Amino acid sequence: MTDLERQGAAAKKAAVAMALATTEQKNKALLAIADALEARQDEWLAANKEDYEAAKAGGMNSSMLDRLLLTPERVAGVAEGVRQAAALPDPIGVVTKEFTRPNGMKIQQRRVPLGVIGMIFESRPNVAVDAAVLCLKAGNACILRGGKETIRSNICSEGIMRKALESARLPADAVSLIHDTSRETAKELMHLEEYIDILIPRGGAGLIRSVTKEASVPVIRTGEGICHVYVDSEADIPMAAKIAWNAKVSRPSTCNAIEGVVLHESIADAFWKEALPLLAEKNVEIRGDGPTCSLLGERAKAAAPEDWDTEFNDFILTSKVVGSAQEAIDFINEHGTQHSECIVTENPETAELFLNSVDTAAVYWNVSTRFTDGFEFGLGAEIGISTQKLHARGPMGLEELTSWKYVVTGDGQIR
Amino acid sequence: MTDLERQGAAAKKAAVAMALATTEQKNKALLAIADALEARQDEWLAANKEDYEAAKAGGMNSSMLDRLLLTPERVAGVAEGVRQAAALPDPIGVVTKEFTRPNGMKIQQRRVPLGVIGMIFESRPNVAVDAAVLCLKAGNACILRGGKETIRSNICSEGIMRKALESARLPADAVSLIHDTSRETAKELMHLEEYIDILIPRGGAGLIRSVTKEASVPVIRTGEGICHVYVDSEADIPMAAKIAWNAKVSRPSTCNAIEGVVLHESIADAFWKEALPLLAEKNVEIRGDGPTCSLLGERAKAAAPEDWDTEFNDFILTSKVVGSAQEAIDFINEHGTQHSECIVTENPETAELFLNSVDTAAVYWNVSTRFTDGFEFGLGAEIGISTQKLHARGPMGLEELTSWKYVVTGDGQIR
Repeated sequence: MTDLERQGAAAKKAAVAMALATTEQKNKALLAIADALEARQDEWLAANKEDYEAAKAGGMNSSMLDRLLLTPERVAGVAEGVRQAAALPDPIGVVTKEFTRPNGMKIQQRRVPLGVIGMIFESRPNVAVDAAVLCLKAGNACILRGGKETIRSNICSEGIMRKALESARLPADAVSLIHDTSRETAKELMHLEEYIDILIPRGGAGLIRSVTKEASVPVIRTGEGICHVYVDSEADIPMAAKIAWNAKVSRPSTCNAIEGVVLHESIADAFWKEALPLLAEKNVEIRGDGPTCSLLGERAKAAAPEDWDTEFNDFILTSKVVGSAQEAIDFINEHGTQHSECIVTENPETAELFLNSVDTAAVYWNVSTRFTDGFEFGLGAEIGISTQKLHARGPMGLEELTSWKYVVTGDGQIR
Repeated sequence: MTDLERQGAAAKKAAVAMALATTEQKNKALLAIADALEARQDEWLAANKEDYEAAKAGGMNSSMLDRLLLTPERVAGVAEGVRQAAALPDPIGVVTKEFTRPNGMKIQQRRVPLGVIGMIFESRPNVAVDAAVLCLKAGNACILRGGKETIRSNICSEGIMRKALESARLPADAVSLIHDTSRETAKELMHLEEYIDILIPRGGAGLIRSVTKEASVPVIRTGEGICHVYVDSEADIPMAAKIAWNAKVSRPSTCNAIEGVVLHESIADAFWKEALPLLAEKNVEIRGDGPTCSLLGERAKAAAPEDWDTEFNDFILTSKVVGSAQEAIDFINEHGTQHSECIVTENPETAELFLNSVDTAAVYWNVSTRFTDGFEFGLGAEIGISTQKLHARGPMGLEELTSWKYVVTGDGQIR
């Protein structure tokens, strides 16, 4: 047995206990985690400082360094998030369907945990805690595999969480971190079918794609977002400009920010007259097709072919002019990543065509794509945004971390 | 582009049209398929006769030959199944959740098709039709890959289905069969991520395992069934014997038949006194652990280690004696395939422990495991029985062939 197999076996055993844990026990563990993160924040901050100094010495850029940094305020935010998770309704044990068959047997579909969840993530030190507590609340065990740049911070928070689990008489092994951050352990994790029920990668498109390609454990693909706003011929133009502006500039690094606008030819000129001043504020670079460049002159540059399939995470916006809503739908289905797409129109029929035809986790009519988020949707928490159709689609809350079983009771029925 | 990629691209295009098809259109297509299968049954029977003769000449055994054979009665049964599928409620477009957020935006979770479903199956000629119509009813396109021994029958039914789709003004490409039955095309199908949303293998354990291992397309694992009946110390013994007998002998080739009994030591003797005469009827072979062999003498033989992990599909039954319900749970969680497991007991607390602790798609209390089946559960149809926890678990009906999307409407909300 390898170290990781031993870790997997321990997690699987812990998952059995977690599946039987009461709501009170799980909440007690979560509150103990929140309290301990605050009570022991000096340790966590000190470990993080070491990570930070090492990354800085290694030449990490300032925006990445900022993601890596823990502060007392950020610790308080993490602890608050854990307390919110404790306050959420327990999804486990809920009877989701119930019926009696003609032979008298009673069938219940009951919600149960998935089992052992593997999380692979990159640099933020809060992710280990955020992800672990959602897994725990849904009755799962988890194995965490963070990046090497946060390994000291993560080892510290792992210790805090394991101790808190024990204080609630739950198995410490319900949370464990892979301490060896080499590529080999990540690869081994992706093939640990015997112990891992599902793998959720969180991070950039490169990470997600490599995990999806490599893993034999089932993966939930999350987070890659090439999103668009389509402005229809019958759009309220000021609303369209405001939505496109908000979806682009309010936080361009997020997956629910747009990368492009798709404009009906009849309103392209009017749209730009409204939108340009708004976008100028952040100096948004526009990369357009031929018609866009004709309209905008020097304000736009010609888009390269790969621009239509790039998630910029930056103040860059593509612009494509189309002759019809159907053409916009086809363009979006070809270049989008099935994350979030928006139509701005006053025509309900065109809207319904778009809402039904665009193949995406979330589709918006006259609303910014920036709302694709577990908190904004009211799920109370989020472990990621699924861009696949199997098991979970869109923001993943606690329910998406569960499965079900059928419980059949009777008095001797045979077939 | 390979032939299969072209086929995949055509299916993906057809899936877009299927997703927009009305319930009436889909039902019209299904009824046209049922009618055409009967109207053109001479063609189908003739193609099947060629398959049958070739398989017979190739030395196929008689039980396999029987699975391969179509008769007018079997054709009528297939057509009837298609009509029943047409009569089922359409799962698509159903609003599964609906809520309004404080900012006034309205969020609907709507059920949508999965897209393109790949089916890999073995010898029965009805499977191509049964599987295709469920995919179609749930608004999907499908690509079918059957065994070479039924290729003539399947090419015939493919032609009938494609023509019927066109008669309902739906794209013929919503159903297509892979005509080249070489290993290479199966392997290529398992990696056709760009066009296939989900792959469902139907057949023996070997097929399921090789697809699960090989495929990069998401797979739903179905059908492997090492199931058990645990007879508790507080069981109604005649009921236990009757359930074990039914679950073993009523149809041993099915996945929901049991392979073993697990007996509390305090009732093992009493159980066998009731069960042996019932099992003797079919001359069931008993392979037991030490205590079983001591009890049964020559009536049992010693189980080999691999017997505990074998799906016999035959009149063979293992027997394990345990000291407690917990020991039974541990044994079943180690050797079962998460398909169907049963406890016979009059003690509700012991039952609840078993129902909650055994990790399986369906768990039974005083009911035979043979009921794990889409029709018996009242789903109206079934495309397989999932033994995994992701996306679908247990009998898979129409709902399990769908995904969802979030539709968000508002009047200019920004974040």
